[in-house]
Amino acid sequence: MARVSQEHLDARRRQILDGAARCFARNGFHATSMQDVLSEVGLSAGAVYRYFRGKEELIAAIASEAFDGIRGAFEEASLTVPPPTPDVLLGRVLRIFLEERVAGADRQAFARLIIQVWSETLRDERLYATLSEGYHGMRQAWALLVEAYRANGLMAADVPADHVARTLIATAQGFIAQQALFGDVEVGVLQDGLRGLMSMETQSPS
Amino acid sequence: MARVSQEHLDARRRQILDGAARCFARNGFHATSMQDVLSEVGLSAGAVYRYFRGKEELIAAIASEAFDGIRGAFEEASLTVPPPTPDVLLGRVLRIFLEERVAGADRQAFARLIIQVWSETLRDERLYATLSEGYHGMRQAWALLVEAYRANGLMAADVPADHVARTLIATAQGFIAQQALFGDVEVGVLQDGLRGLMSMETQSPS
Repeated sequence: MARVSQEHLDARRRQILDGAARCFARNGFHATSMQDVLSEVGLSAGAVYRYFRGKEELIAAIASEAFDGIRGAFEEASLTVPPPTPDVLLGRVLRIFLEERVAGADRQAFARLIIQVWSETLRDERLYATLSEGYHGMRQAWALLVEAYRANGLMAADVPADHVARTLIATAQGFIAQQALFGDVEVGVLQDGLRGLMSMETQSPS
Repeated sequence: MARVSQEHLDARRRQILDGAARCFARNGFHATSMQDVLSEVGLSAGAVYRYFRGKEELIAAIASEAFDGIRGAFEEASLTVPPPTPDVLLGRVLRIFLEERVAGADRQAFARLIIQVWSETLRDERLYATLSEGYHGMRQAWALLVEAYRANGLMAADVPADHVARTLIATAQGFIAQQALFGDVEVGVLQDGLRGLMSMETQSPS
């Protein structure tokens, strides 16, 4: 077997993932076959299976990269003093997800792919592991920011940071669901909504 | 054909819907067949098909009832002065959804069913119509409450009520997704999270 450089291997992996992402976003997870991916990237089955054994591995790798992108946005945010409020930061992250990453596919198709991945995760252990790791990474990143809000006197100290983190993640997930189902989501809607909530005063818990 | 009373028809319909809901929540939408539903309710195919022509009609009817239940909780809330804040009301609604309605099935299975319904909605026009109607009903109900928040001086007036409505719906949808995927959701987490957000101050929009 000829020896190939790491750069070549990385470039090939990139080529396969980008092609697979285009296929999945265009036709959905179920309607895409490995044959479709091979045609899209113009490689032989042998060349592709060397990197990914099937659709589940491909979608897990794509999801993993998406989580890395979001974590990057959080790291940048946590270096800012005072840190951007949730409406600003969630808007920034959702724009990466729904606008910049989509690369040619329409936004609703991309959001639908995410819903299909959630549904598929209920059946596939590898995908579950990827999503679970990504979800816990998000929780940690948001929780650190919540700590920063408190340190800057921006948020009440009596609410567990992890609970705020999960609520903000839920809001982003719900917007992806609305975009998938009804296709009428603009990021500014979520930003307005969070600002509305932030303008309220809390009552005593019932 | 023998004439039957409306009460008899209604009771039979109720019996079929309850049995189908048990099947769907236990085994998911895809793994449930009409034969499973017939076995569960102990009726003949002829008796059941008189009411529902297939799984999609059954799940649409179940979803429609769930939306009615939530609308009831909202109507009750809007009669209260001042209206309950979003953390209190969303907690109440999610408890109906995730705890009371589940009737024997475990909560994660029920949340997974909702994810499957979202995924199925992308393919089925009738389900789409049901979900779309329910979603717009929710938006109107929340928007009316947001108007009530303003009338009671509880929320800033410069944010569109519909945007707050959609953000709160998104938060509930995201919690259902987290419950389906990771099964670790307590309603109190969402309530804490909303209280944390409500304790923040808004910055000027970026």
